[in-house]
Amino acid sequence: MKVNINGESREMRSVWMQESQIMFIDQRLLPHKLDFFMAQNVEDMVFAINDMVVRGAPAIGIAGAYGIAQAAMLGGDVNEAAEKLRTTRPTAYDLFFAIDYMLKSIGEGVKPQKAAEDYVNSILEKCKKIGEYGEPLIKSKYKILTHCNAGALATVDFGTALAPIRFAHQKGKEIFVFVDETRPRLQGARLTAWELSNEGIPYALIADNAAGYFMQKGEVDMVIVGADRIAKNGDVANKIGTYTKAVLAKENDIPFYVAAPITTFDFSLGDGEAIPIEERGDEEVLQFFRERIAPKETKARNPAFDVTPHKYITGYITENGIIKSEDIPNLKRYSTM
Amino acid sequence: MKVNINGESREMRSVWMQESQIMFIDQRLLPHKLDFFMAQNVEDMVFAINDMVVRGAPAIGIAGAYGIAQAAMLGGDVNEAAEKLRTTRPTAYDLFFAIDYMLKSIGEGVKPQKAAEDYVNSILEKCKKIGEYGEPLIKSKYKILTHCNAGALATVDFGTALAPIRFAHQKGKEIFVFVDETRPRLQGARLTAWELSNEGIPYALIADNAAGYFMQKGEVDMVIVGADRIAKNGDVANKIGTYTKAVLAKENDIPFYVAAPITTFDFSLGDGEAIPIEERGDEEVLQFFRERIAPKETKARNPAFDVTPHKYITGYITENGIIKSEDIPNLKRYSTM
Repeated sequence: MKVNINGESREMRSVWMQESQIMFIDQRLLPHKLDFFMAQNVEDMVFAINDMVVRGAPAIGIAGAYGIAQAAMLGGDVNEAAEKLRTTRPTAYDLFFAIDYMLKSIGEGVKPQKAAEDYVNSILEKCKKIGEYGEPLIKSKYKILTHCNAGALATVDFGTALAPIRFAHQKGKEIFVFVDETRPRLQGARLTAWELSNEGIPYALIADNAAGYFMQKGEVDMVIVGADRIAKNGDVANKIGTYTKAVLAKENDIPFYVAAPITTFDFSLGDGEAIPIEERGDEEVLQFFRERIAPKETKARNPAFDVTPHKYITGYITENGIIKSEDIPNLKRYSTM
Repeated sequence: MKVNINGESREMRSVWMQESQIMFIDQRLLPHKLDFFMAQNVEDMVFAINDMVVRGAPAIGIAGAYGIAQAAMLGGDVNEAAEKLRTTRPTAYDLFFAIDYMLKSIGEGVKPQKAAEDYVNSILEKCKKIGEYGEPLIKSKYKILTHCNAGALATVDFGTALAPIRFAHQKGKEIFVFVDETRPRLQGARLTAWELSNEGIPYALIADNAAGYFMQKGEVDMVIVGADRIAKNGDVANKIGTYTKAVLAKENDIPFYVAAPITTFDFSLGDGEAIPIEERGDEEVLQFFRERIAPKETKARNPAFDVTPHKYITGYITENGIIKSEDIPNLKRYSTM
């Protein structure tokens, strides 16, 4: 992705390995400050995932892969590292997929760093293909709504939902993006807005409450979001508020696409009911950065994700093409990983 | 309404007249500080409405009524004052209704302060009746979702949407309220949470994105919201995000009620299409209180209201009882004002 450093546009990944250290763009500090977080051991990795230095299902998977590689390279117990990493965040499937992949590869004698880089390159390749397959869905003059950040920050580059948008813009299509601010953690306002600005893609930030207004007014041509976990029947767990946008899109006859690599599909779950939904701390809702917004005695509820039933989803943009929910059970065997 | 001052619970209105001065609870400072704003002339009143010292359709109407009375008492030109007040905020119908009422009353020889106090007492009476008629809709153990603040702060006391909730609580019913935080101005987090805390009514604050989650989980038994303007066919303009909650409620078979006095009904408009929707400044979305949340080059769109078509509305809780959209054309002649 493009990143501006001292007024210069540079290419950068959101996560990478440097010797045995894992480097992250620290997403907690964006858009005000581009700074980096260095994980030197599995405890640092656990912190980075828990505290959302890194977030987004594919990027959490990559952090998990690098975390296992790092533990192995430092001579630690990879199974113990795997256990610690598995308990960080329950919803994103990529984390579990990546850890299993790493343990299997290392068990088969693949060098840890090579296994992790193979995993990362495969995600990169998948995101690129998602962009290529999704791009033709976006017609010139389209206004696209997206929720949360399913961009390069949420993967290592390109993004999932943002990949088709990047590619459409690069092809010279005149597009416009409505960016939901995405309370409570504001990934839209802070991260998606930052990525789109860096790429020069026109957009407007809106309150989550305003998405329905623009849909009702006929100003939204399509919705593209990412996913944290997709069940076999096509039900999608994604950032809280995704279900709302899907219901609104259906009500207003607007196509609603989910963009995700096959690492996000959990073929062991029949439907979305069984996807574990993380409830995070009250303070994310009660505070804004460090500023309290509610009376001191107020309590909050803070589910971090919701489940969008497959009936609301027009299609799934994957590295194998655009598929329907009924195609999902056949997807596994086409997967390169 | 109950207000805590130095640890003591006291009864207070949100707006009142003191000699020729209009006093307001300054709603911009809540919940952190209970302080007051004094309007000494029509310019102060215009500021108070524009800057949202006072907000909520019935309270804006009351501010307008007091503003006209004040202009008359100070020997000013009431028609000129009316023109200035009319240009403050375009959506809430009560403002226009109250100004017309005041001009007519004063024209008929009613003393300005008496005309204004009559108007305020009539709103108070209407809110009380809304509470009485709405209360039986709320069963014990009900969990009620509300959006924005349609409480005592938005009227002078009791509220519209919050009146039935207050009355149900006073009757000893075990109820629970989900409070949407209501970005961008956070009227839910700041004002509704404050009122419910003061009354001792159990509630949880949620991100606007989470309302759909709790509806889908079966945790919401009913929705009650206020209104800024209601067209003859029952379409309702209310705080941005109301349309979204209504669509979600319908999708999940949850009753959706609008509570409003008849001063909020605009019988001159056939449907909601014609209701003027205020777009407010970018900075409400780009900032959170004074803290910038988006990149410096980001632009926003900020519609302050949306229109909920009547097909999503189960009923209207008014001072004349609970009515359906088809009853609205007959409503006018029952109105006491």
